[in-house]
Amino acid sequence: MMLTDIVKHLIKSDSIGVISHVVPDGDALGSSRALGLALEKMGKRVIIIKNDQTPQKYNFLPGVHLVVESDSAPFNADTLAVLDCGDIERLGSGILHFKKAGTVLNIDHHISNTMFGNLNIVDANAAATAEIIYQVIKLMGVTVDLDIATCLFTAIAADTGCFRYDSTTSVTHSIAGEMISIGVKSNSICNGIFNTRTYQQTKMLGKAIESIKLFHEGRTAVMSISKAVMHKAGCGQEDLEGIIEFARDIKGVEVAALIRETETGDIKVGLRSNEYVDTSAIAAFFSGGGHKKASGYTVNSSMEDAEFMLLEQIKKKYR
Amino acid sequence: MMLTDIVKHLIKSDSIGVISHVVPDGDALGSSRALGLALEKMGKRVIIIKNDQTPQKYNFLPGVHLVVESDSAPFNADTLAVLDCGDIERLGSGILHFKKAGTVLNIDHHISNTMFGNLNIVDANAAATAEIIYQVIKLMGVTVDLDIATCLFTAIAADTGCFRYDSTTSVTHSIAGEMISIGVKSNSICNGIFNTRTYQQTKMLGKAIESIKLFHEGRTAVMSISKAVMHKAGCGQEDLEGIIEFARDIKGVEVAALIRETETGDIKVGLRSNEYVDTSAIAAFFSGGGHKKASGYTVNSSMEDAEFMLLEQIKKKYR
Repeated sequence: MMLTDIVKHLIKSDSIGVISHVVPDGDALGSSRALGLALEKMGKRVIIIKNDQTPQKYNFLPGVHLVVESDSAPFNADTLAVLDCGDIERLGSGILHFKKAGTVLNIDHHISNTMFGNLNIVDANAAATAEIIYQVIKLMGVTVDLDIATCLFTAIAADTGCFRYDSTTSVTHSIAGEMISIGVKSNSICNGIFNTRTYQQTKMLGKAIESIKLFHEGRTAVMSISKAVMHKAGCGQEDLEGIIEFARDIKGVEVAALIRETETGDIKVGLRSNEYVDTSAIAAFFSGGGHKKASGYTVNSSMEDAEFMLLEQIKKKYR
Repeated sequence: MMLTDIVKHLIKSDSIGVISHVVPDGDALGSSRALGLALEKMGKRVIIIKNDQTPQKYNFLPGVHLVVESDSAPFNADTLAVLDCGDIERLGSGILHFKKAGTVLNIDHHISNTMFGNLNIVDANAAATAEIIYQVIKLMGVTVDLDIATCLFTAIAADTGCFRYDSTTSVTHSIAGEMISIGVKSNSICNGIFNTRTYQQTKMLGKAIESIKLFHEGRTAVMSISKAVMHKAGCGQEDLEGIIEFARDIKGVEVAALIRETETGDIKVGLRSNEYVDTSAIAAFFSGGGHKKASGYTVNSSMEDAEFMLLEQIKKKYR
């Protein structure tokens, strides 16, 4: 599958729905908005399908006029572009649109992608799906304006920890530099994504740090957040973005985990590694997915059992 | 003054000393090492003059074989290249070499530079002095190898908060991208400079966050750390670096304070502001000092009294 096949299909499509995963992050939102705005500039009928709440810190993203609630979206587009989404379960209520779609374009950078589309472009070397969307937009012949640049830059900055993660390549920097030339305010975007926290989020961070326990001679750090702690802090799961990094960044730690109880009582586990452990293999053991250094899964158990089972799997990864 | 004049002078020099400012940061160290290594590759006699301690986190920088202690350096080089240094007072003991030098090259990006060199290149648009050194190395015809690239990348990453500060331009990203192509491990460098905390420091951060209280309709955030909490966490005051920023970065907060009990029982207060409050005036009221957005003072009182007196002074600053 070539990128040009996706581009050719978009060029001949009249109406396109753009969708991404639930619990959207900066890449999901920024990639969707960028593609939506570019398609609009080409004169296409385009909607961005909203299947989950947008974290407040991303409210500045342009292209909100294209966004339609998933439930109320009268979907009759000939093409559905699914972005940054490793499998269709991550579409949440948006799965209805997937079922109704004529052609599904699957554009992603998760190595675990299940290739659910009619056309699939999965580039695990891309630091963000937005890097692929950047290529798509260029190949469609659309000029990247400040609005599109803001969306692309935000997506890339969010998915690379502002150019810190080692997924960051020379391509990543090259695109970022071009976006700054176009007028993107990189500092306010990076600060908006990473530095500012509400009082509740700050308190939640404190609680999460308090919960950190070390295992395996300090190589594994586990954070645990119960539903009760979330309620008491007045936080939702969108307030936890980035919190796991405080466990990953502890000197000597190789694998960090965030074990969290959801509203329904399921346990969600996020994983991060620093150097050599492939966390996506651990996530896959529990039917989850992701990247080598960032992955996750859901289990139906107690928090204690989830921790016990996880530690067993992590232990096997140390040589 | 053209960059090519500096380059021509370096090409015709036989022996060169490279020096930077005391309390060296990543740009001072990385720029010096990069230039030193490039000159060595050209077959020059070159030393990097050490006028202060190198922070441990920069021990990985290549080029240490060129480094000579300022006091013991038998300086007979025809040229002294002074990098990243706004004025000669910042050379510390290295001032002796400045006085003995035949030709002084002043290469810097501080707008306040006093133009103390025989040849001066001061580019305030450069995000780091290393951006200028990159141009110098290219113009000298030296191929940037992995060692030089590591030095340049580290310098730029350090001076831009890993590409977050708004000094970051498309040039910055372009150089960073090239260094990654050469093989620089950006993630481990950025983490090494900025992210890593020990387990104790992480736990201390959690405790400090837990202690945050808001006042003045959320405009003031106060962190308090008692001697007992420090002891329990096994931390000293050097472990508190940057902790106050978690109070300052709370949405809506203008003034953040860290109130800390010292070993002797005195109370040290650190202050930060985000926009308009001049914290140095508050610190001055308590016989302290600092800058508008970062200042501090010491008082002899209980922690509760220190907080009460401080809040009274902060309140006056809100209009």
